[in-house]
Amino acid sequence: LQSKLPHVGTTIFTVMSKLAAEHNAINLSQGFPGFDCSPELVSLVERYLRNGFNQYAPMTGVPALREILAQKTADLYGVTYDPETEITVTSGATEALFAAITAVVRPGDEVIVFEPAYDSYVPAIELNGGIPVYVTLTPPDYTVDWETVRQKITDKTRLILVNTPHNPTGRVWTADDLQQLANLVHDRDIWIVSDEVYEHIVFDQHTHLSLMTHPVLQERTFVVGSFGKTFHITGWKVGYCFAPKELTTEFRKVHQYLTFSTVTPIQHALADYLKNPEHYQQLPNFYQRKRDLFLEGLRQSRFTIKPAEGSFFQTVSYASITDEPDYELAVRLTKEIGVASIPVSVFYRQKNDYQMLRFCFAKDDAILLDAAERLSKL
Amino acid sequence: LQSKLPHVGTTIFTVMSKLAAEHNAINLSQGFPGFDCSPELVSLVERYLRNGFNQYAPMTGVPALREILAQKTADLYGVTYDPETEITVTSGATEALFAAITAVVRPGDEVIVFEPAYDSYVPAIELNGGIPVYVTLTPPDYTVDWETVRQKITDKTRLILVNTPHNPTGRVWTADDLQQLANLVHDRDIWIVSDEVYEHIVFDQHTHLSLMTHPVLQERTFVVGSFGKTFHITGWKVGYCFAPKELTTEFRKVHQYLTFSTVTPIQHALADYLKNPEHYQQLPNFYQRKRDLFLEGLRQSRFTIKPAEGSFFQTVSYASITDEPDYELAVRLTKEIGVASIPVSVFYRQKNDYQMLRFCFAKDDAILLDAAERLSKL
Ligand SMILES: CSCCC(=O)C(=O)O
Ligand SMILES: CSCCC(=O)C(=O)O
Repeated sequence: LQSKLPHVGTTIFTVMSKLAAEHNAINLSQGFPGFDCSPELVSLVERYLRNGFNQYAPMTGVPALREILAQKTADLYGVTYDPETEITVTSGATEALFAAITAVVRPGDEVIVFEPAYDSYVPAIELNGGIPVYVTLTPPDYTVDWETVRQKITDKTRLILVNTPHNPTGRVWTADDLQQLANLVHDRDIWIVSDEVYEHIVFDQHTHLSLMTHPVLQERTFVVGSFGKTFHITGWKVGYCFAPKELTTEFRKVHQYLTFSTVTPIQHALADYLKNPEHYQQLPNFYQRKRDLFLEGLRQSRFTIKPAEGSFFQTVSYASITDEPDYELAVRLTKEIGVASIPVSVFYRQKNDYQMLRFCFAKDDAILLDAAERLSKL
Repeated sequence: LQSKLPHVGTTIFTVMSKLAAEHNAINLSQGFPGFDCSPELVSLVERYLRNGFNQYAPMTGVPALREILAQKTADLYGVTYDPETEITVTSGATEALFAAITAVVRPGDEVIVFEPAYDSYVPAIELNGGIPVYVTLTPPDYTVDWETVRQKITDKTRLILVNTPHNPTGRVWTADDLQQLANLVHDRDIWIVSDEVYEHIVFDQHTHLSLMTHPVLQERTFVVGSFGKTFHITGWKVGYCFAPKELTTEFRKVHQYLTFSTVTPIQHALADYLKNPEHYQQLPNFYQRKRDLFLEGLRQSRFTIKPAEGSFFQTVSYASITDEPDYELAVRLTKEIGVASIPVSVFYRQKNDYQMLRFCFAKDDAILLDAAERLSKL
């Protein structure tokens, strides 16, 4: 069987998590919370499990969940989506990203990808015969050079992939970024997939500006979100997609044959849990405290650090400490110092090595302090 | 946005279930149990939910679940698969089917599809640029004419889709079917996806012959299964795929970007629950009694009926009663008699109407008797 994805090996997340386990290292590589979700949320799932909510949910998602998502989005971003025709519940944000990309991309279409890029975007483009066109962002700021983007857009450009707050760099898009993007696409047949799974995790003076808040972008964007990152339930695999009716129609045609529907009792529980906005309003403070704790612990280290603006990842530069390639250093730190991270080069097509490592700080305080102390030895 | 699936409308399952709800009709259309799963299984999920099994499962599935699946398959079918490299847990059989088809099919490839066919096969083929080539099965027996299959195979044939026990007809493949298929593919680069989600639901003298039991087929087949049909948990969305290592490698590359992983606490619970084989051994009797009850209730009806050999669907012919198109009759029965069904024509590309309706008998006894009594009025 000839491979349709010849370049894909074992994902870095699996590789590093396994290495961490083998060496009994602190695992700050794969992005998932090291603590549990709320017992209240667990109880809600139990209630639906016990009361017979165990058969297929509607293909589009449980109505109560779509309705509360519409309400939350109206409250937070002032944007109205119709739960009946514009919101779809998916089996994680990964499925939503794949479905949106599949709904748009045809063989030969060009897709603008900002790199460093989350690892699922490009294989999804390639499986649909699309051609990724890279715009490279570089440390320390990872800002977008919009003139470069303009130059990369051609008649074949059909889709642009956005991710804000950004994994792995933690950068949050500004109002100017949204406007620049709008200027480029407003008169073209270009659609947008915006991965906003860290929407509730932003720090300091930064605000998450969903692409849905810009009218020119809203009408052409699939906005993808996830409960996994927001409620510490990465293992429950529930995500969602907001998109105007015409786009949602095509999105659902794909979703219907990818997974058809998503776990019923969990959808009902999330619909109830979302009724209390505190459950996500407290998230920025919760994670900012952890970021600051980790950064404080790293004060004695020799890393060069620009605090993450959002997400639960912190990248650090080790350029002033050693010349090792980032992949080798990540492996060595796991084995020798006992802290696993992700080398940022894996998020670049050509494995550009800017001597950066990514650490996930969604972990218990004691673990973050222990990791920081070990890392300060470098 | 130009549609990549222009022919796809709202799925018949959604249409008929909605119509049934509107008219307060008994819903024997969409295939899902009208009763709950075992409380023991619910308790197991609760145990894992409460004990912090709420983050990402491994991409390939929870090891304990893959291991018990390997053991069950060895016990039942005498075939050995390596849980580490040949078994993958998916977000329902739908995802497994999509991933297997995507792993194999490239633009221009021909895929043999037996129709009537479950509705997700062809869109998955088409999204990958494949060309469905139909072999049409007809009532009352729906047997495969292997000479026809032979004639449809060309140099471009890359995949054959099999479904046994068969939805919607309930037919179960025989040893001769397996051998005939093996004869056709043994010297060609043709792969097989075998949808065996009703593997534990077979009746009378029939036995489920998994394609994995034939060595020539085993080495080229993705065997897809589902816990939804077996444990009355269609809403939990857990399926799996068995395939030789080389095939599984490609399958996982796709799965990784479709959903990445599947709900963690449910996987752990299923691993425990599978330890007791009675949980699936009792299934044939359980459903045969329901099929027989439904058929007994239909004895006074004017339908022509060949009892289903497997699955939880019974098709009936109404040719001797009325000339109405099957879609119209299904709608009329829902509205006037209060029983929703699926017109079998929807499973044919050209909507061939053989005047057959499909009823799901995975319902409580009283409901089946009530439905049969209403249907006998026709
Ligand atoms: C799906 S595993 C990867 C989790 C994640 O989002 C990350 O580590 O970047
Ligand atoms: C995924 S909804 C369809 C359920 C089913 O298998 C059927 O009714 O055929």
